[in-house]
Amino acid sequence: MEKNIAVIKGDGIGPEIVNEAIKVLDKIGEVYGHTFHYTEVLMGGASIDACGDPLTDEAVEQCKKNDCVLLGSIGGDTTKSPWYKLPADKRPEAGLLKLRKSLNLFANLRPALLYDELKAACPLKEETMEKGFDMVIVRELTGGLYFGERSTVTEDGILVARDSLKYNENEIRRIAIKGFEIAMKRRKKVTSVDKANVLDSSRLWRKIVEEVAEDFPEVTLEHMLVDNCAMQLVKDPGQFDVILTENMFGDILSDEASMVTGSIGMLSSASLNETKFGLYEPSHGSAPDIAGKNIANPLATIASAAMMLRFSLDLEKEADSIESAIKQALKDGYRTIDIMSEGKRQLSTSQMGDIIASYI
Amino acid sequence: MEKNIAVIKGDGIGPEIVNEAIKVLDKIGEVYGHTFHYTEVLMGGASIDACGDPLTDEAVEQCKKNDCVLLGSIGGDTTKSPWYKLPADKRPEAGLLKLRKSLNLFANLRPALLYDELKAACPLKEETMEKGFDMVIVRELTGGLYFGERSTVTEDGILVARDSLKYNENEIRRIAIKGFEIAMKRRKKVTSVDKANVLDSSRLWRKIVEEVAEDFPEVTLEHMLVDNCAMQLVKDPGQFDVILTENMFGDILSDEASMVTGSIGMLSSASLNETKFGLYEPSHGSAPDIAGKNIANPLATIASAAMMLRFSLDLEKEADSIESAIKQALKDGYRTIDIMSEGKRQLSTSQMGDIIASYI
Ligand SMILES: CC(C)[C@H](C(=O)O)[C@@H](O)C(=O)O
Ligand SMILES: CC(C)[C@H](C(=O)O)[C@@H](O)C(=O)O
Repeated sequence: MEKNIAVIKGDGIGPEIVNEAIKVLDKIGEVYGHTFHYTEVLMGGASIDACGDPLTDEAVEQCKKNDCVLLGSIGGDTTKSPWYKLPADKRPEAGLLKLRKSLNLFANLRPALLYDELKAACPLKEETMEKGFDMVIVRELTGGLYFGERSTVTEDGILVARDSLKYNENEIRRIAIKGFEIAMKRRKKVTSVDKANVLDSSRLWRKIVEEVAEDFPEVTLEHMLVDNCAMQLVKDPGQFDVILTENMFGDILSDEASMVTGSIGMLSSASLNETKFGLYEPSHGSAPDIAGKNIANPLATIASAAMMLRFSLDLEKEADSIESAIKQALKDGYRTIDIMSEGKRQLSTSQMGDIIASYI
Repeated sequence: MEKNIAVIKGDGIGPEIVNEAIKVLDKIGEVYGHTFHYTEVLMGGASIDACGDPLTDEAVEQCKKNDCVLLGSIGGDTTKSPWYKLPADKRPEAGLLKLRKSLNLFANLRPALLYDELKAACPLKEETMEKGFDMVIVRELTGGLYFGERSTVTEDGILVARDSLKYNENEIRRIAIKGFEIAMKRRKKVTSVDKANVLDSSRLWRKIVEEVAEDFPEVTLEHMLVDNCAMQLVKDPGQFDVILTENMFGDILSDEASMVTGSIGMLSSASLNETKFGLYEPSHGSAPDIAGKNIANPLATIASAAMMLRFSLDLEKEADSIESAIKQALKDGYRTIDIMSEGKRQLSTSQMGDIIASYI
């Protein structure tokens, strides 16, 4: 099979970790007889440096010509990097937001689970993680506050900044359907998170989610306020199966959830539209402080490549093969520094890529 | 000294826990020779039930006539309670939002600390809590998304809901100053939390906070993105001294932080305006599921009464006396069910109030 993959290496540790994912994909190609064609596309800081724009229209078009996009991570240190002296719509993150919108990637899936082998890295007490946890955060990705109109103006000599949050029922319905569909393949529980005691957008969210729930009678639906959910993720993460929420709440809660697993360097994500097309990237950021040191954990990106094979390229057993390789490497005691513990073998970024590839 | 205190018992466990705080305040009065006059004011569900409005203008006026307000907690189960069938501005929470705005309570202080005696209740591993933690979240309380214009309308046959987020530089400046002033009395570090890589309001926030920082050269200022902060609170809560943030981020992060302490039933809060006036309430909610069972932990409310004595009534040593009594009760092994652990003595709500009063 021949497949076309747009590759955005990005900033910080992005290039290092994407290189390892490509190493593993190439091994998959070799073993299973596929050819993957990669087209490098610029986005984020790298694109600003190259052409003064975090994402050009040509780059968007290039992505569209491919079957899917594999992304490392973008952005830099928001206090130190010169990219953050630029106007808002010229910064690295604006590129990612534009890409999500242009490709209509409304459904962001972020699994957060406790790896048995990595319990030592989980910040929670034994009792709390005893029963384990395995959830997916289904975050709406192209609406809400991150895509609302904004302005900063001077009124009567005083600076006033505005952002706006808007959702229509169709935007809510399609992400809710995704959430319930995913729950049907899992433990059949959806926790919909909102701030319906205050926000109008949250009340509409709750109403539409309830309507969608009627079409999924097997799924248990529960509503939770966002402040309570931020607590429950720490108190009892095992209670969650699918967390369904809007863009900004999803941003905050998915990061919290990934830290609760203790293995943020392990967690993949997929951003999907209505077709097979998707963008795949690690849940973690660009970690500018450790960039170029060959110490970053490439497993989240490699796991994202597995998701890509499964969701966009219909290569189910190839995806399984990557996931088994990751589990085997952990079992065999291989670790990068972020998940290192006593008695294990610490590897560099590229060594970890080699090991995974060798297990395919 | 004679002081006038407006008392809002509220909903759920509110009445039970406030009664214990009053018990303790009366004991303070007795021992130190003060008279506290209490005026009961209705707000939230109780007020809806009594007069169809979560907070009447008369109730606001009554609060203003007093030196401060002591609040239990308001609201009910958002899925089950009939209060949540009412239109948005008629629900319990609308009362609290109206009160905050009418009294101009722009500064919400929420301490989140690990009690030595209650380490068993902390959900984090020994290693993480080893060095302990003790932070205050300084949350802007009268601006942002919770007070923006909202609407739900049908456009071209489709329901559309909108909320809006607005901050002007003065609103940011006054809360930033509060944050830095508080840091000056503590470990002199401010972590300002925003989403400046996306939101205009966050960029203005960051700019004004930096301006204010210039007047506090002894304080170390650090900026953190909200998603990262949600992670850091779990990973390393000991890094924080003062977290300074806007209304909604503060709502989410303060709840997360309080759960990280493992002692949400212990945490007080104060909401202040530019004068000595303030509203004092526990950080936790109304816990409708355990209401009326005489098992709720009254210590957060009692600790809030101590804050009230200190900040609004200038009764410093009386405040100290309550705080010492709480510590002593914990040392002596008294616990309510939420913080119970092996070998300790479990008390009811009213028994805990008795014990604290007896220690004054
Ligand atoms: C980089 C930023 C715009 C982005 C977001 O907030 O959506 C990131 O934090 C994420 O969660 O993917
Ligand atoms: C009851 C609700 C409006 C309130 C808020 O979100 O501000 C509460 O959650 C709080 O944090 O004080």
